[in-house]
Amino acid sequence: MSTQYWSNVVDKLTPYVPGEQPKLANLVKLNTNENPYPPSPLAIEAMRGEIGANLRLYPDPNADRLKQAIAALHGIGMQQVFVGNGSDEVLAHVFQALLKHPQPILFPDITYSFYPVYCQLYDIEYRTVALSESFEIRVDDYRPGNGGIIFPNPNAPTGRLLTLAEIERLLAANSASVVVIDEAYIAFSKNQTSAVPLIARYPNLLVVQTLSKSHALAGLRVGYALGHADLIEALERVKNSFNSYPLDRLAIAGATAAIEDTAYFEKTRQAVIASREALMKDLQSLDFEVLPSQANFIFVRHPKRDASELAKSLRERSIIVRHFKQPRIEQFLRITIGADEQCAALVKALREILG
Amino acid sequence: MSTQYWSNVVDKLTPYVPGEQPKLANLVKLNTNENPYPPSPLAIEAMRGEIGANLRLYPDPNADRLKQAIAALHGIGMQQVFVGNGSDEVLAHVFQALLKHPQPILFPDITYSFYPVYCQLYDIEYRTVALSESFEIRVDDYRPGNGGIIFPNPNAPTGRLLTLAEIERLLAANSASVVVIDEAYIAFSKNQTSAVPLIARYPNLLVVQTLSKSHALAGLRVGYALGHADLIEALERVKNSFNSYPLDRLAIAGATAAIEDTAYFEKTRQAVIASREALMKDLQSLDFEVLPSQANFIFVRHPKRDASELAKSLRERSIIVRHFKQPRIEQFLRITIGADEQCAALVKALREILG
Repeated sequence: MSTQYWSNVVDKLTPYVPGEQPKLANLVKLNTNENPYPPSPLAIEAMRGEIGANLRLYPDPNADRLKQAIAALHGIGMQQVFVGNGSDEVLAHVFQALLKHPQPILFPDITYSFYPVYCQLYDIEYRTVALSESFEIRVDDYRPGNGGIIFPNPNAPTGRLLTLAEIERLLAANSASVVVIDEAYIAFSKNQTSAVPLIARYPNLLVVQTLSKSHALAGLRVGYALGHADLIEALERVKNSFNSYPLDRLAIAGATAAIEDTAYFEKTRQAVIASREALMKDLQSLDFEVLPSQANFIFVRHPKRDASELAKSLRERSIIVRHFKQPRIEQFLRITIGADEQCAALVKALREILG
Repeated sequence: MSTQYWSNVVDKLTPYVPGEQPKLANLVKLNTNENPYPPSPLAIEAMRGEIGANLRLYPDPNADRLKQAIAALHGIGMQQVFVGNGSDEVLAHVFQALLKHPQPILFPDITYSFYPVYCQLYDIEYRTVALSESFEIRVDDYRPGNGGIIFPNPNAPTGRLLTLAEIERLLAANSASVVVIDEAYIAFSKNQTSAVPLIARYPNLLVVQTLSKSHALAGLRVGYALGHADLIEALERVKNSFNSYPLDRLAIAGATAAIEDTAYFEKTRQAVIASREALMKDLQSLDFEVLPSQANFIFVRHPKRDASELAKSLRERSIIVRHFKQPRIEQFLRITIGADEQCAALVKALREILG
């Protein structure tokens, strides 16, 4: 391969590798944290209604309808809402617009593995901060003098939730830098302990959410960020210097209807939570250590069986889960909470494998 | 506004301002170069078929189906195709991956006004090269020793087409840098003189196209780049360090079907070309100077009437066209080729205004 024409940044990139999207049917797919339920029927209807001649016209570059729905859901102003093509695109803009500073940014050693990739892409220095032995974020380890702080809550791939009181302590101690709470999985926290209510008091707080998991719309690519209008303005400037229309007409229509269908959201999130609690018990009864999870996945290890071997054996039975070859967690498997019949298939397969 | 938390780059940005997307009905909207015809019925059908429970699943991050269709259309390999969320996103990645070099890049003084914005976003130095007095690109003015070259062909907002022979001369003279031909409007060139066939012989050529105008899918956000596999690999690395899934399931399905419906494409492009030729004559009969256009818009000026005044008068009659307050072209209007009844409404209004 000739790299003659490449910009310098390209040579140094080690791109993110998303969880596999196999093209085989009949798999029990528990590897990318998708919601086991279909999207809201109202969202389906809204997308159907949007398909037609108007697709010849550009979408609203500001996606105002969607911003209004999100603002209403969270009881904040529209100018406190930024929307993008999945939370991955939102996060990319966040790194470039709010986390690129002379001092290194901080994130946990075990976390979403896209963060260091964004740092490479935008030439941002970072330091990782070790989770505790039980894989908890210790806010006192995030010392002021950083260029920003980011982590998911619940954290991925551990599933562990940090309390709002701890987040508030972190925000107060780091008022000179932006703290980004990536709430991709917050919908599955029992009491939905989102940090959004703290936005009113902390101008350095940015909360990122996505419809991919919470609203079963991974296939539609819609994410958003909430924060003080000054933070949102920075994101808008970068977005409008990158791509005027990241959300197509169908995504705007579907996401708006999904956000507004709060009854369906509540029903499906409770179903996932119930399945998670049951699956945790089932795996504990098979001697797995299961980290306490408030996400739509669990992070487990078996005291006697190698994780990559277990993943391989599951795969032979058409069940795919995610294994990260990474220090500290190489003996863990991350398992998405499927529908009850998928969870049952997993437990049955594990019972066979463990003998 | 407090900019305390902003990265340095944000302060310096002057974001791109897209053409207005007014929320009023009953406008004759000739300001953003949308196709006057609806998308292919097969594309509509494909999108309808994709709406359902599977939207809970992530899309194919590589959009292989779509890449296959594009590769087949152009008679090239899949590894020579890059796809993105509209050609604006594709261009953003092109600037970061292939146009950021120690030497300044070159583009015309009158061209797509997003180019200098990308340069700001990625801190890329550029020089503009003046078009001729008749607004033509003179390839001899693009001297080797540059960091790259980019322009639309047909150029925007002039509509003028550069011949393939001239493009080949440019490619040969600048073999040390990437030459990007932005073919957003090439579908409306009578003989479709795309530079794609030159890809096989020039590893420094990248061609960018979009379905927004050519396939009446501005509302769906799909663009692509074609070139040597080494150039495409650079784009893939940046894309996979930015957002794994920029194309949602509906966009992949709709774009694939639209690309495959070559009969509908040919029919609608010929209709737009015929309307353009008729409108050019009508405006010439109203004393307008009309630049020769091979795009789905025309660029016109009246010898006796101020362009911004004309735009204002048209707007009062619910007809919107685009006016750029920019040296050399401030007396021009860019007018999208609408359906015949829209063109007729425009001509009637202009006749009234000119008295």
